[in-house]
Amino acid sequence: MKNVMVAQSGGPSAAINATLAGIFERAIISQDVGTVFGALYGIEGVIKDNIINLSEKLVGPSVITQLIRTPSSALGSCRMKLNSPHDDPNTYETIFENLCKHNIGYFIYIGGNDSMDTVMKLANYAKSIGSDISIMGAPKTIDNDLCGMDHTPGFGSAAKYICTTFLELWYDIKVYNIPAVTIVEVMGRNAGWLTASSALASLICGAPQLIYLPETPFENERFVADVREKLSSNPALLIAVSEGIRYENGTFVGESAQSGATDAFGHRYLSGAAKVLESLVRKEIGCKVRSVDLSLMQRCAGHLASTNDLSEARMLGSVALDRALNGASGEVSVIYRISDSPYSVHYGTAPVSQIANQEKLVPHEWINSQRNFVTPEMIQYLTPLIGGDFGVQTSGGMPIYIDLM
Amino acid sequence: MKNVMVAQSGGPSAAINATLAGIFERAIISQDVGTVFGALYGIEGVIKDNIINLSEKLVGPSVITQLIRTPSSALGSCRMKLNSPHDDPNTYETIFENLCKHNIGYFIYIGGNDSMDTVMKLANYAKSIGSDISIMGAPKTIDNDLCGMDHTPGFGSAAKYICTTFLELWYDIKVYNIPAVTIVEVMGRNAGWLTASSALASLICGAPQLIYLPETPFENERFVADVREKLSSNPALLIAVSEGIRYENGTFVGESAQSGATDAFGHRYLSGAAKVLESLVRKEIGCKVRSVDLSLMQRCAGHLASTNDLSEARMLGSVALDRALNGASGEVSVIYRISDSPYSVHYGTAPVSQIANQEKLVPHEWINSQRNFVTPEMIQYLTPLIGGDFGVQTSGGMPIYIDLM
Repeated sequence: MKNVMVAQSGGPSAAINATLAGIFERAIISQDVGTVFGALYGIEGVIKDNIINLSEKLVGPSVITQLIRTPSSALGSCRMKLNSPHDDPNTYETIFENLCKHNIGYFIYIGGNDSMDTVMKLANYAKSIGSDISIMGAPKTIDNDLCGMDHTPGFGSAAKYICTTFLELWYDIKVYNIPAVTIVEVMGRNAGWLTASSALASLICGAPQLIYLPETPFENERFVADVREKLSSNPALLIAVSEGIRYENGTFVGESAQSGATDAFGHRYLSGAAKVLESLVRKEIGCKVRSVDLSLMQRCAGHLASTNDLSEARMLGSVALDRALNGASGEVSVIYRISDSPYSVHYGTAPVSQIANQEKLVPHEWINSQRNFVTPEMIQYLTPLIGGDFGVQTSGGMPIYIDLM
Repeated sequence: MKNVMVAQSGGPSAAINATLAGIFERAIISQDVGTVFGALYGIEGVIKDNIINLSEKLVGPSVITQLIRTPSSALGSCRMKLNSPHDDPNTYETIFENLCKHNIGYFIYIGGNDSMDTVMKLANYAKSIGSDISIMGAPKTIDNDLCGMDHTPGFGSAAKYICTTFLELWYDIKVYNIPAVTIVEVMGRNAGWLTASSALASLICGAPQLIYLPETPFENERFVADVREKLSSNPALLIAVSEGIRYENGTFVGESAQSGATDAFGHRYLSGAAKVLESLVRKEIGCKVRSVDLSLMQRCAGHLASTNDLSEARMLGSVALDRALNGASGEVSVIYRISDSPYSVHYGTAPVSQIANQEKLVPHEWINSQRNFVTPEMIQYLTPLIGGDFGVQTSGGMPIYIDLM
């Protein structure tokens, strides 16, 4: 009987622990799985043999329910990029030695497109050395930029945080009877999905009135003209901008406000676009203007998690281990949409090569022709993903979360 | 039979509409009150006779329940400061003409210490002209800086948002196994109450580990030494700083990052302290560091409102009108604490002169001797204020809020 090892990688989300719970739940109903181990801090935990025994920690359904509701990565995370086996054979040897030492038959890595690069390399290496250890990926990213699936777990919860926050910001900013512009910066790197989800608030309150995504080039003149036009009909103006918006020449709008630092995958830490646009509005229009950055809150607000998202995240964990138990390796669990209303999905797997290092951007036909809002198709796509009530358990007025490390 | 007029003033909170609801509920059970009117955009609405009929709008308990849950000022707000009647007699004459025109017997102004300046001036003016219109205040401010009461409505909900967010930020930032400092800026002007409420998260997760309030002078050297020391025991460090922290010489820490703009009451728009300290840590320590600004979210997060806070805010509205019906004028409804556990309070009124233009700061004995955290007394004071579950009603995954304007 073989054991299972799980690790989590990349940026936090509110649903990544639900996927861990799904893997664990699939493991404990199997007669072919022994112990479930967790490697701490992503693949680094496997390399350093820094592991914990999850079978001993996750005892009983109430602990698993708390784990599902706990945001971020209960096993810690990393942003480590593996070199090729040719350039760094020692690391690969160490990883497989440590997996063998714990009698691992199935290694599941939960992460985004960068983390799937690790899955691909390890799966290929396993094949090349004739190892029968199954290496599988389970998807995770608030950015919703993974190819091969309808949407990513973690996205729905972040989207729910974003549209709820835009709704509440609208209530905040509309109270004064003077022209005032509020520019809110949303994450998502090169993909506009998260920023687009602010449009769900507009269904209820008519704001944000303007949405700028990174998929189309940004123009200062056009932006100022849009702001002037909207201010002429309502003194309060709420605007959503992606951290990754850039000009025609490829320069990030926020570039001047940034440190220029990059992560291990060469991605810049983006932020500052709203600040730059705040200055632009002050200079060109001169009205009251402020910028707001949803910052880390949009990826860790477990109390606002979408119950649809958590449920799907769990299923995607279960599917990844299930297929591994059935002999698959080098694959990633994925979700397909059957229908919007009633909302219905099914699950499967896709080869990791179709997902690793790829980015799924917002299709241009879901952005309006003025490039300052999204189309009804986008809203139809987003609506079911934030579904469900706020089911967080509380104690003394605060959410109950769990610690595994 | 006389009518009631209500207006809301100052910055938004999650509880200000609960106070409006409390006034309305007290009015409709009275045999001495006719119609309840709302003046839009604070005292400006009275001056411009921009009013709505609340008795027609707030029909039935479910609408009132939604109003209680809706953040920010349903009647709009303003930051207008009245000149003295000597300098600006016309404005006072207009206000009282308009109040008489609608047969108002009771005018209730919901707001903070600046708004209570308006209540005081109008009550004194009424007395000077022999008007029998009662002018009363109902307190409101997330800053908790009003004298004469145990705490202010709106504060508990903002505190609940803040400590919940710190808890979730901790889950976000602790996942990487590298030294990383996250500095979170909290509102509160010159008072540290809101920032102190982050300490409630530390009871659960041990973070924030450092808290800096504006009541004691800030020192860069001491701050850097604190950060170094905390990093030596845990790589993830979460720090709470008030927007209003300043150096011994009175300069705001965030001053270099600020526009220098002030509001009608001469208060500077503060923000930027965390940004300045982020640069300081980068320069002096050189580890990963980021700053987060809780910005407008901390005052409008209705979905995280404290049910204790909403309940008290409602009572304070009812009390203000109740005392007015009993002949009082120039007073503000206040709340006193009887005991922490079980949490018990009672209500009364205080002369507006004791509250207008005053600031209640955090007592120095509730700040630790190192000036980098709060004492157990502060935690005991804060704990009951965030009480209650998340009772927000939702539709399609988003909170249900109401519009009156």
